[in-house]
Amino acid sequence: MQFTARDIAALLGGRLEGDPDHAVTTIAKIEEAHQGALSFIANPKYEQYAQTAPAGILLIGESLAVSNDKVCAIIRVKDPYAAFTTLLELYQQVMASGQKQGIQQPSHIGAGSKHGDGLFLGAFAYIGDNVTIGTNVRIYPSAFIGDGVTIGDNTTIHAGAKVYEGCRIGKDCTIHAGVVIGGDGFGFAPLADGTFKKVPQLGIVEIGDRVEIGANTVIDRATMGATVVRDGVKLDNLIHIAHNVEVGDNTVIAAQTGISGSTRIGKQVMIGGQVGIVGHIRIADGVKINAQSGVSKSIETEGRAVTGSPACDFREHYKGLAHIKLIPELMKRIAELEKRLG
Amino acid sequence: MQFTARDIAALLGGRLEGDPDHAVTTIAKIEEAHQGALSFIANPKYEQYAQTAPAGILLIGESLAVSNDKVCAIIRVKDPYAAFTTLLELYQQVMASGQKQGIQQPSHIGAGSKHGDGLFLGAFAYIGDNVTIGTNVRIYPSAFIGDGVTIGDNTTIHAGAKVYEGCRIGKDCTIHAGVVIGGDGFGFAPLADGTFKKVPQLGIVEIGDRVEIGANTVIDRATMGATVVRDGVKLDNLIHIAHNVEVGDNTVIAAQTGISGSTRIGKQVMIGGQVGIVGHIRIADGVKINAQSGVSKSIETEGRAVTGSPACDFREHYKGLAHIKLIPELMKRIAELEKRLG
Amino acid sequence: MQFTARDIAALLGGRLEGDPDHAVTTIAKIEEAHQGALSFIANPKYEQYAQTAPAGILLIGESLAVSNDKVCAIIRVKDPYAAFTTLLELYQQVMASGQKQGIQQPSHIGAGSKHGDGLFLGAFAYIGDNVTIGTNVRIYPSAFIGDGVTIGDNTTIHAGAKVYEGCRIGKDCTIHAGVVIGGDGFGFAPLADGTFKKVPQLGIVEIGDRVEIGANTVIDRATMGATVVRDGVKLDNLIHIAHNVEVGDNTVIAAQTGISGSTRIGKQVMIGGQVGIVGHIRIADGVKINAQSGVSKSIETEGRAVTGSPACDFREHYKGLAHIKLIPELMKRIAELEKRLG
Repeated sequence: MQFTARDIAALLGGRLEGDPDHAVTTIAKIEEAHQGALSFIANPKYEQYAQTAPAGILLIGESLAVSNDKVCAIIRVKDPYAAFTTLLELYQQVMASGQKQGIQQPSHIGAGSKHGDGLFLGAFAYIGDNVTIGTNVRIYPSAFIGDGVTIGDNTTIHAGAKVYEGCRIGKDCTIHAGVVIGGDGFGFAPLADGTFKKVPQLGIVEIGDRVEIGANTVIDRATMGATVVRDGVKLDNLIHIAHNVEVGDNTVIAAQTGISGSTRIGKQVMIGGQVGIVGHIRIADGVKINAQSGVSKSIETEGRAVTGSPACDFREHYKGLAHIKLIPELMKRIAELEKRLG
Repeated sequence: MQFTARDIAALLGGRLEGDPDHAVTTIAKIEEAHQGALSFIANPKYEQYAQTAPAGILLIGESLAVSNDKVCAIIRVKDPYAAFTTLLELYQQVMASGQKQGIQQPSHIGAGSKHGDGLFLGAFAYIGDNVTIGTNVRIYPSAFIGDGVTIGDNTTIHAGAKVYEGCRIGKDCTIHAGVVIGGDGFGFAPLADGTFKKVPQLGIVEIGDRVEIGANTVIDRATMGATVVRDGVKLDNLIHIAHNVEVGDNTVIAAQTGISGSTRIGKQVMIGGQVGIVGHIRIADGVKINAQSGVSKSIETEGRAVTGSPACDFREHYKGLAHIKLIPELMKRIAELEKRLG
Repeated sequence: MQFTARDIAALLGGRLEGDPDHAVTTIAKIEEAHQGALSFIANPKYEQYAQTAPAGILLIGESLAVSNDKVCAIIRVKDPYAAFTTLLELYQQVMASGQKQGIQQPSHIGAGSKHGDGLFLGAFAYIGDNVTIGTNVRIYPSAFIGDGVTIGDNTTIHAGAKVYEGCRIGKDCTIHAGVVIGGDGFGFAPLADGTFKKVPQLGIVEIGDRVEIGANTVIDRATMGATVVRDGVKLDNLIHIAHNVEVGDNTVIAAQTGISGSTRIGKQVMIGGQVGIVGHIRIADGVKINAQSGVSKSIETEGRAVTGSPACDFREHYKGLAHIKLIPELMKRIAELEKRLG
């Protein structure tokens, strides 16, 4: 598929310089620009490339001076990053329009299950009994949807993702490959003989709308009630969410973080990668938790930023690290004082 | 399915107050009580709910006074938690009796494989050649059981779990979705040219009886011999167990912990989440390792509790943290002394 | 399959003592030696076993004295470890020659896809459209290979691994069960209303030759361009590689490590388990990063070894830990000085 500089400039309402008929087929980072691709510069750090990059089409701001005869066409806009994002979306829509449709065989749809229009069901995908699926849902090969699950409109379940029985997934969600939703929570009661007795896990997992869940992330079902991931939450890869956890609206969690049972995370919280959070605590709205932190107590103050294990305010944490480095000097000063006192 | 207060009271040997014919269909946490559900109070922290919760049936101790007209029926027992656990189990048994049976098609059973009565084999599940499967085993869709694997009675293998060739799984185990058992251990010999040569991994994984393994956890096969997970072990989600590790009876390990090659973990050890343990060491019986610890040396003392990275006794660890906070005061006192000495 | 001491001695060019007709069927660690197996001793730490182990065949160095009537045959070579590795490889080749061949049914091969000779395609495996597969490729049950993927000669894709559309995998690779290659990078732009807008992830993942990827590891596709894992890289289990990361030739990464977006790792870097590396930094060739470290800045010096979080040189890190332990003594000395000064 080809797009000319003229077409793209018109689409973005940009000012065109150079060859209006120059055509590109893809998008490339400015560091990897080539004449068959459109590249953009929004960050001043990359402006140097404007003079050297062999770009097919260069999308830039209104005032950046360019003297580079390897650029075939320039499109100038007010906000190059916003314009670029618009382009990316259009590109993706064009790509999406070519997506597979229909129900591939063999696949399994259990008794009493129903689905809206526009379903893509890949070969070897399994839909249990009494499942309810909205319109325009895409379920890739070898995905497993347990009995009684509900999936909202426009949601995509990638290859080999598994949703245990009874769980509910909202609209416009993307569940990546290998995700497991609704496995048993880790609940065992110690017995007198040193063995453990399983506490039945009878609850479900409830995923809101516009949630994205990264590959191989795991969300356990509740003991009773529901483990809840609310609207707009974004989870990266290989995250662990234990039973009865609640994650508030638009919270973002980076890869390999783990949240223990019954902890309640507020709205618009940002959690870095490899963070550990103990069970049965509360994290207030807007809190920011730095990567690799260990959070062992509730954080009640909205918007607070913490780091370290045990997690504390950034300033306190880095002061502690700086103080450790002062110890050799303190030792010297004490020795000096002792010498003077004889 | 409906249960009346009269039936449940009889079942638990409890004393009934209120409407004996009030019926419920499910169980709910006391904070989420509603008139269609049974809720219980065992922990004094929750006793306040007894006066306000709109519970269908309220299961409580013998002496808790309740004045709450939104509760339809009360069942009083000596030990509400034990009674509740009994109920949970009965509930699960009733649910389980409705489970799917038989062999769904298409599925694959290789040459020479045999299985006992009561097998459930989901669609798209794959059983290799010469596999031995006990009675009442449940293997969910898209699970992979390699050649020569053995699976004991009453074991459940959830959707998309994979067991490589030759591995052995005991009785009464639950292997959750996405678990991988028996992938190659991470063994590579460095060569003079900077590349690495794979060390063939010829051993297996042996899982005992009554083991539960959480979603997407990974247990590598041994280089030679076996990686061993003994009876009653409970593993949470996303755990890494390397080649030739041994995990002793009834040890419990929380999510995202990793154990490096050839380390031997004793019996009834409790390991928190996100712990890292180096290879080739030994952890004695009954040791407790706190979340996010890094264990770099053997722990020889039974029952010892450690924390931190490198892990040490709790007291020592928290003393170290407290001491760091004293440094500014020490600095002040030294400055004062220096001033006084001129 | 049986091998006699005579045959093995001839194969290895070793000197034979004892019964040349004694036959074994397997290999065992010296601690687990039995008469049906060959065991070896290369490390002096294990030489004590030479006098006690009931080995069928004992493979040892030229000078180790053995007086042990439970050993049936001894084979002496110059370098027992090298000889043993040779044996392991032969053993694996013999085992491999018995591997499954052909295309099991049902499986799915999409339009326009082609493959070389020697393909093994397991039941329920899915090959999308326009996929290109080299010779002697092995794809196990329930694996998912998206549209337009390329897979080089002699590569093995284990059960349930998933490769999203457009990604490229080189020759002689081993991709273990549950691996996910090419899921969307974690890119979301914050909007004014507190929600996040997905940044389309249009790039791919490129895996070089001779790469091994451990079970349930995840490698995200680039936003644009490619996430690159170069020749000879070895990745352990449950690793997270974010979008646009580059991992250089022959770098080795242990389990549960996470690398954030756009970071570039050099050649022959060694990274321990549970390490976290922030995004947009550079790690020089030959760097060594200790387990559980947190790397927050570029490491520019080749071959540097770091540990801790934030990561620093080993010496500095351990000095800091040692200094903390000196604080109580410093407190005592200051108190003493204060007392003397009245």
